[in-house]
Amino acid sequence: MRIVVLAGGIGGARFLRGLLAAAPEAEITVIGNTGDDIHLFGLKVCPDLDTVMYTLGGGIHEEQGWGRADETFTVKEELAAYGVGPEWFGLGDRDFATHIVRTQMLAAGYPLSAVTEALCARWKPGVRLIPMSDDRVETHVLVETDGERKAIHFQEYWVRLRAAVPAHAVVPVGAEAAKPAPGVLEAIAAADVIVFPPSNPVVSIGTILAVPGVREAIAEAGVPVVGLSPIVGDAPVRGMADKVLAAVGVESTAAAVAAHYGSGLLDGWLVDTVDEGAVPQIEAAGIRCRAIPLLMTDLDATTRMAREALALAEEVRA
Amino acid sequence: MRIVVLAGGIGGARFLRGLLAAAPEAEITVIGNTGDDIHLFGLKVCPDLDTVMYTLGGGIHEEQGWGRADETFTVKEELAAYGVGPEWFGLGDRDFATHIVRTQMLAAGYPLSAVTEALCARWKPGVRLIPMSDDRVETHVLVETDGERKAIHFQEYWVRLRAAVPAHAVVPVGAEAAKPAPGVLEAIAAADVIVFPPSNPVVSIGTILAVPGVREAIAEAGVPVVGLSPIVGDAPVRGMADKVLAAVGVESTAAAVAAHYGSGLLDGWLVDTVDEGAVPQIEAAGIRCRAIPLLMTDLDATTRMAREALALAEEVRA
Repeated sequence: MRIVVLAGGIGGARFLRGLLAAAPEAEITVIGNTGDDIHLFGLKVCPDLDTVMYTLGGGIHEEQGWGRADETFTVKEELAAYGVGPEWFGLGDRDFATHIVRTQMLAAGYPLSAVTEALCARWKPGVRLIPMSDDRVETHVLVETDGERKAIHFQEYWVRLRAAVPAHAVVPVGAEAAKPAPGVLEAIAAADVIVFPPSNPVVSIGTILAVPGVREAIAEAGVPVVGLSPIVGDAPVRGMADKVLAAVGVESTAAAVAAHYGSGLLDGWLVDTVDEGAVPQIEAAGIRCRAIPLLMTDLDATTRMAREALALAEEVRA
Repeated sequence: MRIVVLAGGIGGARFLRGLLAAAPEAEITVIGNTGDDIHLFGLKVCPDLDTVMYTLGGGIHEEQGWGRADETFTVKEELAAYGVGPEWFGLGDRDFATHIVRTQMLAAGYPLSAVTEALCARWKPGVRLIPMSDDRVETHVLVETDGERKAIHFQEYWVRLRAAVPAHAVVPVGAEAAKPAPGVLEAIAAADVIVFPPSNPVVSIGTILAVPGVREAIAEAGVPVVGLSPIVGDAPVRGMADKVLAAVGVESTAAAVAAHYGSGLLDGWLVDTVDEGAVPQIEAAGIRCRAIPLLMTDLDATTRMAREALALAEEVRA
């Protein structure tokens, strides 16, 4: 079985662990969001790709969900001693090495997809991880501070401001001119199932879908497309997805997110048991829906979620 | 008093400490060797500039003479885990930050001299440190291994091979087209005394002198030019200067190094007391010479050496 997963960072990475356990024989291709990539200290940082790579490769800081386990921050402290920031982005020493290798390879002319493959040769994540595009796409958020609107990098909005200022729009700058990375459309066309994990529907999966050709390829793949709601009981399971959903005019409910993807794209949708009441409404919109526990509290719970997603896909297929 | 010092790495840096103690009121400009600069991991590393900066700024690893005190090597270990080397060059985490800042500033368009000034704003070395040139100069060594001659980077010869293979030539690649950095010629023209510390006469001071205009400016400055022999009793005080002296056809003696600089450039020369016998020969060649203890065993000894150098300069002037 060939499974294609569109993934952001923490939510996607944790779900993938469950999927690997649920379908150990499957060939899994992960199309990773690169819209939250950022250049820091002259280095190219790809937070979502790294979170997937570290999580599946056993290098992740488990409690935090991002960054490396057993991390130290000497380089960052020294940079601060030079007066060089930003200090709000937590790059550790181990993590720095990843960005140094990536930046060096990019400077040598390798595309991001080849660099990601090279990095994964160390981590052996058990999936094929492909960035959504080799072209630069950078998610910007239109915020309002002191009565003035300005566009800032998603990481500044998310990490520095903790999404605490009103967001009026989310723009994946460069997406319209980006091409899917080599292997992305091929993997989608060859997929038996396509899964949207409980990643952020706007700045993670939404950004991947904004790369011209990706949404169309998924819609035309002719295979079940199933997703898991990142919203449980009107609030994001983690993160601040509600803030960016509001910016694109979508309510923070499992049903609204399903409708946002739309029945033209999505065939099946898993909501949490607390949202069972929304199932009829979602099914009425043409999306097959089941209510199951959606909290990824441990690997067992996550594996059950992945199994349910695959079962729902089979239901859709039948 | 305005003093200009041409400096390599460890020897130059340690001498400068003594000079600062000997002449606390002097305005000291250090013209630093950049011929041993190297690009590692996509980062620009300037070993000699950093050794001067860290030594005078209180950040140096004292026993080692280069690199940072209290250093860790997490980034390097992680790079090795990615299979990315070289492993023979010891870049520590604290040190990495310096190279990251430098590389980022260079990429932003600042010349190396401006970058060095910015880095020194943190370290406050008590001298004005200027790279010999903002242009790239890279010392290569023509070596013979397995009967074959090839040119390798100086650092590879020095650090990886520990100068243990025969060197047939030392070539400061790019020097002939390099321009002195802003301030270099001005500092020389305004100097009251010019000092060659016991740095490597070939790959440190020799490289600085190879930048067109520098040697001429020193010769024409009309002020005393005094040096301290890096060779004591037919062997380098530290390092492997004898190997590169052989490559340029110069004997490893205090007298031969003085003759190599030449009386057209050098007015005064300090040799160690063990080389007292060479004094008449050096003076016969038109270079005023004194024999004093030349081992920089501690700050007091080094300060005495600096005082003797300044006294010799006054003798020359008179």
